[in-house]
Amino acid sequence: MDEFASIRHWTDGRQSEQRLREQGVVVGIGDDAAVVEAPPGEGGALQWVLAVDTMVETVHFNAATMAEADVGWKALAANVSDIAAMGGVPRHALVSVSVPRAWEPARIRRLYDGLYACAEHYGVAVVGGDTTSSPAQLVVAVTVVGTVEAGRAVRRSGAQPGDAVFVTGPIGMASAGLHYLLAAASGEQCVPLAAAEAAGTAALVQAHRRPAPSVRAARVLAARGTVTSLNDVSDGLASEAWEIAESSGVKLTLRESQLPMSGSMAAYARRSGVEPLEWMLYGGEDYVLLGTIAAADAAGAKAALAAEGLPMYVIGTAEAGAAGVELVHDSGNSETGRRAERRVPLAKRGYNHFG
Amino acid sequence: MDEFASIRHWTDGRQSEQRLREQGVVVGIGDDAAVVEAPPGEGGALQWVLAVDTMVETVHFNAATMAEADVGWKALAANVSDIAAMGGVPRHALVSVSVPRAWEPARIRRLYDGLYACAEHYGVAVVGGDTTSSPAQLVVAVTVVGTVEAGRAVRRSGAQPGDAVFVTGPIGMASAGLHYLLAAASGEQCVPLAAAEAAGTAALVQAHRRPAPSVRAARVLAARGTVTSLNDVSDGLASEAWEIAESSGVKLTLRESQLPMSGSMAAYARRSGVEPLEWMLYGGEDYVLLGTIAAADAAGAKAALAAEGLPMYVIGTAEAGAAGVELVHDSGNSETGRRAERRVPLAKRGYNHFG
Repeated sequence: MDEFASIRHWTDGRQSEQRLREQGVVVGIGDDAAVVEAPPGEGGALQWVLAVDTMVETVHFNAATMAEADVGWKALAANVSDIAAMGGVPRHALVSVSVPRAWEPARIRRLYDGLYACAEHYGVAVVGGDTTSSPAQLVVAVTVVGTVEAGRAVRRSGAQPGDAVFVTGPIGMASAGLHYLLAAASGEQCVPLAAAEAAGTAALVQAHRRPAPSVRAARVLAARGTVTSLNDVSDGLASEAWEIAESSGVKLTLRESQLPMSGSMAAYARRSGVEPLEWMLYGGEDYVLLGTIAAADAAGAKAALAAEGLPMYVIGTAEAGAAGVELVHDSGNSETGRRAERRVPLAKRGYNHFG
Repeated sequence: MDEFASIRHWTDGRQSEQRLREQGVVVGIGDDAAVVEAPPGEGGALQWVLAVDTMVETVHFNAATMAEADVGWKALAANVSDIAAMGGVPRHALVSVSVPRAWEPARIRRLYDGLYACAEHYGVAVVGGDTTSSPAQLVVAVTVVGTVEAGRAVRRSGAQPGDAVFVTGPIGMASAGLHYLLAAASGEQCVPLAAAEAAGTAALVQAHRRPAPSVRAARVLAARGTVTSLNDVSDGLASEAWEIAESSGVKLTLRESQLPMSGSMAAYARRSGVEPLEWMLYGGEDYVLLGTIAAADAAGAKAALAAEGLPMYVIGTAEAGAAGVELVHDSGNSETGRRAERRVPLAKRGYNHFG
């Protein structure tokens, strides 16, 4: 198969005409460039939101930790999450894949299977790409283009003293999943989900392989006009909190007792002898949102999300002071009712993937 | 240096506020995603043009053929050329760089030097990126976002029988330059331009390392409303002509005598014992434009481009018939005045980079 035939094989007929039309696709895959316009029926002026994210074999995944389809899903999902973190709607994706020469075409097809599954899940139109060979490892770089109502993008720099700090889902699951996968791996074989199910770690493995960005939650939150900053948790809670703190010039104080912990992560941490806080603070790749919101609207926002079946956890407060992030250890003595709080500054370090 | 400090070092202060403002950049590098809008002062509705292109070390270049800054320039230029090939204006770029662990930070800085030089040359605002490590080779994937007047994008599928076929510059120079570089290379040392100057191949080497896409020519041509198809010559003239022929359902007949040949390429071909037509037809990476235009407007378009100092060469005609590409060998007996035309079908094969 020549290059063009291969690309057609991977991409032709994957998305409905309706999907492409509703995303304003004028020219899709197959010309020098794609042409898109603001989708019909949008009220008011829009701005465009642009993000790129790259996954490299042996840096972000290997043959044991993720199947091809997982890589395709996650490469797109990471970008969808960036668009969500601005309060935008993801619309169009362009895909650069550098494929090791030894790969069978069927493996690339499976990568696209996962990518298109994610695209359909989030209503994204895949409009272009580039396929090259790679001397050694698979490299996937995905760019996503989205829209946001003009002037309504939520940056990371707007947090105010007094704001509540929140996340839109449990944290640390993805790195617990990676911990399990690296321990369970033997050779080049992809660790099967059935093995994770048997081990009680399936939810953790799926959090690592198939992250589900908080697009809908971001839209609900951004529409309230009270969210002052927003980041997606790609590099770990501590690192993302530091970014908001430094960009906004505030101190974020997080309360350990309020950090949302998944039961399966807690159980797996116990069995593995790992301190779960390490995963929750420094794990990364959770792709939930971390943000700040005017304290007066925190309960209202939580109720609005709950009405759509979406979680929101208030985990701390923004305070005046030198930019930084502090964790209040406050979960020790809840049974005795005694206050035994201990404040520790959180290191700025982020997620280091495999290293 | 941590990742964020590095990125700041590579990207901070590289472009003026005015450049960013005139390209409608609302949020640039440094948040989850960039936010852009149609630049102020644009008349009428715009559509957005999106393209991605990837360069992989040992596939598209190696240490001897291109310096870091050349890689940065060319990775952006290849995309600028794709936007031009739709008749659009390139505006925003996102850069994914996967860097071998052994690289000194100064090398990445030089890569960005070339990228920003190209960005300034074409007025493009660099608005985002992702930097990851790479286990072995450098991989650079650049996405460019541009605009085009709504409904005016020039596709490759509109060629009509009777149209004139044209290119916007000489062809084959870039692959002649690569031929020289591969012959002159010894070890990991980048072949210096001074050596090429001494060898009379500097223009060829620069065509390979620093291609100059025909953005302005594309805008002049697209504005006439008579250009029926447009492709950039990235994979070689034959391959691009085939794409137009197949997409449009026409036969393209090219005349050998009318193909624009650079003097330095002809001289280098003679010295090297290479048939220059091979480079001109199957070479690739010239990043000039190949297109079709209503025959009645060919002279007018040529004059309009000449008024701006830009070349245009009519090289053949589109004809009714089965989709395909034919070359008329007609340059043999021009001195005797005898017509000795010979028509040969051109193979569909394209450019294979390093082999």
